Amino acid sequence: MQRALELARLGEGFVEPNPAVGSVIVNESLQLLGEGYHQQCGGPHAEIHALRMAGDLARGATIYVTLEPCCHHGKTGPCSQALIQAGVKKVVIAMRDPAPHVDGGGIAELKQAGIEVELGLLEAEAQQLVRPFVKRVTQGLPWVHAKWAMTLDGKIASRTGHSQWISNARSREIVHQLRGRMDGIMVGHQTALADDPLLTARPAGKRIATRIVVDSQATLASRSKLVQTISDAPVMVMAHRSAPAENVQRLEEAGVEVLLTGNDSQSGAAFPDLRECLQELGRREMTNLLIEGGGGLLGSCFDAALIDEIHVFVAPKIVGGGAAITPIAGVGLEQIPNYANVTESAIQQLDSDLYIRGRIAYENPTD
Amino acid sequence: MQRALELARLGEGFVEPNPAVGSVIVNESLQLLGEGYHQQCGGPHAEIHALRMAGDLARGATIYVTLEPCCHHGKTGPCSQALIQAGVKKVVIAMRDPAPHVDGGGIAELKQAGIEVELGLLEAEAQQLVRPFVKRVTQGLPWVHAKWAMTLDGKIASRTGHSQWISNARSREIVHQLRGRMDGIMVGHQTALADDPLLTARPAGKRIATRIVVDSQATLASRSKLVQTISDAPVMVMAHRSAPAENVQRLEEAGVEVLLTGNDSQSGAAFPDLRECLQELGRREMTNLLIEGGGGLLGSCFDAALIDEIHVFVAPKIVGGGAAITPIAGVGLEQIPNYANVTESAIQQLDSDLYIRGRIAYENPTD
Repeated sequence: MQRALELARLGEGFVEPNPAVGSVIVNESLQLLGEGYHQQCGGPHAEIHALRMAGDLARGATIYVTLEPCCHHGKTGPCSQALIQAGVKKVVIAMRDPAPHVDGGGIAELKQAGIEVELGLLEAEAQQLVRPFVKRVTQGLPWVHAKWAMTLDGKIASRTGHSQWISNARSREIVHQLRGRMDGIMVGHQTALADDPLLTARPAGKRIATRIVVDSQATLASRSKLVQTISDAPVMVMAHRSAPAENVQRLEEAGVEVLLTGNDSQSGAAFPDLRECLQELGRREMTNLLIEGGGGLLGSCFDAALIDEIHVFVAPKIVGGGAAITPIAGVGLEQIPNYANVTESAIQQLDSDLYIRGRIAYENPTD
Repeated sequence: MQRALELARLGEGFVEPNPAVGSVIVNESLQLLGEGYHQQCGGPHAEIHALRMAGDLARGATIYVTLEPCCHHGKTGPCSQALIQAGVKKVVIAMRDPAPHVDGGGIAELKQAGIEVELGLLEAEAQQLVRPFVKRVTQGLPWVHAKWAMTLDGKIASRTGHSQWISNARSREIVHQLRGRMDGIMVGHQTALADDPLLTARPAGKRIATRIVVDSQATLASRSKLVQTISDAPVMVMAHRSAPAENVQRLEEAGVEVLLTGNDSQSGAAFPDLRECLQELGRREMTNLLIEGGGGLLGSCFDAALIDEIHVFVAPKIVGGGAAITPIAGVGLEQIPNYANVTESAIQQLDSDLYIRGRIAYENPTD
């Protein structure tokens, strides 16, 4: 199963909106007969690759697969039937597929066909691998990554809004790698205005993300780099329905998709409802969304408990300033949590910068 | 000389306001004849310890010493004369003593006596060891350490001012060790009010620091832990001369020393002049001062280029809030520096916290 998980990881970034899956077939003396992974959306699933490699030897063998085999006719045939036809003796599955069109159905079919099924081997690792997929199919929301680069005194920009560059070249390289496996990259309109960013992955990554600006009044400039490079990657503006019609029309004529939403539930003001925005992205099968700031947008997302994972770059710089911009503004918590609400944190040194990854836990795990 | 530097470090925290010094005596075949270090202020200097250990063997030997031998009668006799009387052949010195009462005088005396003098071996390391001493004797100011504990989104307190605890037990242990080698520990009056801190080293360290509150109107409460524990460690209030006389009197009667200063040169407002405050501490031979916040005080210190070294603890927590307090407020820089203005940074993991040390460089080293 370890090998199957390794294989699965090779598909990450290529297979979305599908989950990354790996599979290994062995005989009774644990000899490797076949292996494979889901390589790209629309292509064969992991089990099919492994079965093809094993050929007739699959009969009577044991197959390890990181996710419950599918039982539906999607872009490819159902894997459960392929396994039954191949005559495998036993299927070891790391985790059940929570997608509504599977959800135990694959396991049931295998069992009905008299195949021995074992569930739960290395389940935690398998769950971790497909968390973004699971979130999308169960909650209808993309997995939200938040990224910021800050000084050692916790600022993402100086008091004048100057921010380029806080992080060093190696940190920015990591950011481009992150962008290259995202479905969407989001910024607030202040950031779009102040930094005039491209938000593309350079060099190009595994997929091309839609660039999204949360911009209540649809003010994104036609001369902005985002609009000017619309042929390189799509641009979407999430505006409030009170946005001036001429702004919306101007952007749409430039090729920008403008989505109009209702009031933000937190502020009640003419600010797009972020949960509604993310639900729309989920409906479009966006699995991974990267929010690159600024502090206002990330603050609202944190207040609404919408951030899943953080990528923080800390640079050995001090800028100071009570009016300088901090990574997560918004309302914020009343008290410092008495537990680490950033979990699974991992730290990497990138020359003089620090790269800290982690997940956000919104509730005390010991409560 | 490496060994002499190692020995010198053993005195750090005990010898101030003197510099930490180490010394080693060897014969022509580099056999160790004697070694020693300055162990406490008022006690024998490093050279004397080493000479005593070497005894008659010092005649014709070479002595390594990390700082120019003194040539003045202070609490102990001049080391230059002791070396001449012992009949050493050669003195290898890492760095010249910049203190006005030495400043090359020791070297001159040795040379006049016909002793061979070599200057500059491992000078950088020796300089680093006695930087706080050098700053005090040349600029009349203590070496200023700034310490803060912040969340991963750069906050030292929540929007309501709640801050206990951001850092974990191991980080707080390091802070107590730091306090234990300081001459002064300073906070702003807001921090004194919000946190009601003790500011003592627990367990006790090498020396007992004076606890200092920058408190323009001398409002520190008589019932505060600081005033209540005045028998454990002195408390000083740095107030503006416009502070109400009754406040000053109340504090003085409680045993607090109140220092009145002029206007702050930056703000012009009724805020104590921080440089004047630090000069007063320098006059009192305070070598190491730790400023523990809050953001306002550290911001003013950063704006006035008064911070030398930083000790930052980063905890895996997010608190959020545009109105939450950041480590260094004040005015701040207009632009993010295009170079690392925190130099010599060193990172240590303390369980899930990060401890980052570094020096602040106020000017671009490549300019």
